[in-house]
Amino acid sequence: VFRFDPKSLNGRPADSFALERDVRFHDIDAAGIVFFARAFEYVIDTFIAFCAAEGLRVDEVLRERRWGAPLRHVEADYVQPLFFGDRIEVALVAAHLEDTSVTLGYRIANCVDGVVHATVQATHVFVDVDTFARRAVPGEMRSIIETRCRLWPA
Amino acid sequence: VFRFDPKSLNGRPADSFALERDVRFHDIDAAGIVFFARAFEYVIDTFIAFCAAEGLRVDEVLRERRWGAPLRHVEADYVQPLFFGDRIEVALVAAHLEDTSVTLGYRIANCVDGVVHATVQATHVFVDVDTFARRAVPGEMRSIIETRCRLWPA
Amino acid sequence: VFRFDPKSLNGRPADSFALERDVRFHDIDAAGIVFFARAFEYVIDTFIAFCAAEGLRVDEVLRERRWGAPLRHVEADYVQPLFFGDRIEVALVAAHLEDTSVTLGYRIANCVDGVVHATVQATHVFVDVDTFARRAVPGEMRSIIETRCRLWPA
Amino acid sequence: VFRFDPKSLNGRPADSFALERDVRFHDIDAAGIVFFARAFEYVIDTFIAFCAAEGLRVDEVLRERRWGAPLRHVEADYVQPLFFGDRIEVALVAAHLEDTSVTLGYRIANCVDGVVHATVQATHVFVDVDTFARRAVPGEMRSIIETRCRLWPA
Repeated sequence: VFRFDPKSLNGRPADSFALERDVRFHDIDAAGIVFFARAFEYVIDTFIAFCAAEGLRVDEVLRERRWGAPLRHVEADYVQPLFFGDRIEVALVAAHLEDTSVTLGYRIANCVDGVVHATVQATHVFVDVDTFARRAVPGEMRSIIETRCRLWPA
Repeated sequence: VFRFDPKSLNGRPADSFALERDVRFHDIDAAGIVFFARAFEYVIDTFIAFCAAEGLRVDEVLRERRWGAPLRHVEADYVQPLFFGDRIEVALVAAHLEDTSVTLGYRIANCVDGVVHATVQATHVFVDVDTFARRAVPGEMRSIIETRCRLWPA
Repeated sequence: VFRFDPKSLNGRPADSFALERDVRFHDIDAAGIVFFARAFEYVIDTFIAFCAAEGLRVDEVLRERRWGAPLRHVEADYVQPLFFGDRIEVALVAAHLEDTSVTLGYRIANCVDGVVHATVQATHVFVDVDTFARRAVPGEMRSIIETRCRLWPA
Repeated sequence: VFRFDPKSLNGRPADSFALERDVRFHDIDAAGIVFFARAFEYVIDTFIAFCAAEGLRVDEVLRERRWGAPLRHVEADYVQPLFFGDRIEVALVAAHLEDTSVTLGYRIANCVDGVVHATVQATHVFVDVDTFARRAVPGEMRSIIETRCRLWPA
């Protein structure tokens, strides 16, 4: 499975898609910081908002059973803890396309001072929703990634 | 909509179904106590375990599209806060049956000292999964509630 | 405990505070609709955003241990199911103040057609964070509720 | 950062600690399978139960502010989707100790047929709770890992 060097996700290309959000009251864990797995919720919300911004509604894809995109591999590197009340930017900073999968790289940073909190990567494989058999990256997905993402390798 | 007097849910009949569980690391919120809405996760898990213990698998019901049981009304009364590490018992202490709905009453108590943390009630309505039209309480559900729950009014 | 008549929460005063949001991919449950307890996450996020909009940062309140506001009672009435992809408005439509508590009423409606999905109410009690003893509604909270909310009874 | 080869986590040593659990109604996402990030909740619950079984209560550690163990890196490899109603075993199958960190490897498998659903790994760093400065792995943690886990490299 392809993996980005986590360090390569620390920068944010100027034209990359990003979603701003607040760390929520109920994102915190018993240690008083953001529960680490929330980072994966943050990036999936960003992925879905990115698709919608490019005209691809994931809810329609699922309802019409056009294709599925389950995760094959995910990972996160945490640099600084997040706290309730932090305002964060979750940016889609890199993409790597293969025949039947795409790996997306994200950077979670503080909106106020730009400090990077975490980098996350997620490899989706594309499948037929009835058989779960692997299939090519759907054209409607491939095109928005090629058009709008920083591809790696270039 | 039928409602139990919350006080009536403070007692636990000896033969009522109950599930023990630990308050989890990620059930906590930024105030350092259990996020109040977790109580609803706890009672739904108990409802599903109750059904399974009585031979009714909710996962099969959904997969076979036999019927749906969405919530029409829920409420919770919080008496004492819960903390990470608490061991709790979530008991199904009362039930009220109507033609097309059932209201279930739960008590969440500390396993160690028996202190009541919260009472919860949830009214499910029964529907056809395709049309969302109301339907009678399915026989397989009605029978396990009549057999195993403290009915109210008796 | 004070309770609003759920029907009284179906209307939305023109000047009430509201937050728009998307129903998320991971808000859905095994029945294919929004898990009912998400409604409580939605209203708490709205409450915190309301406070912030009025200059009261709940994260600072907690960090400085000024006061706590745990829930004493919550309830929700569900009218229509929500689905992944729905765009919703969560509005704070009513408030009831007592000496040491406040009950807030919310309406969750579809942004596109205005259909009401659910009404929710939540009674916070105010406490000293060290002793959990009840205390008067803090002035900074009382004033923004009196200024910006539709009080009930008027 | 140390990483296990995900394939090395497919086996489960006979004496490894494991927790059985049911996939919950609200663990599902809009695609109808378990939301991938739940795997991280499952492994943290297993880690905390492992500690408790060995006499180390993480809730006490946090309450007494003895040390913190935030995540530095986590990753998961998904082999087969999980569905509502699946009964799973979450096993702690490997550990790698360094001076100030530990990487734990987990295997999530179906209890009925033994099929592996996912492997997960999580690197905790140990810190002083006040300063967040790195510190040595606490003796009470090191000893239970050395005693009860399959160490890697041996």
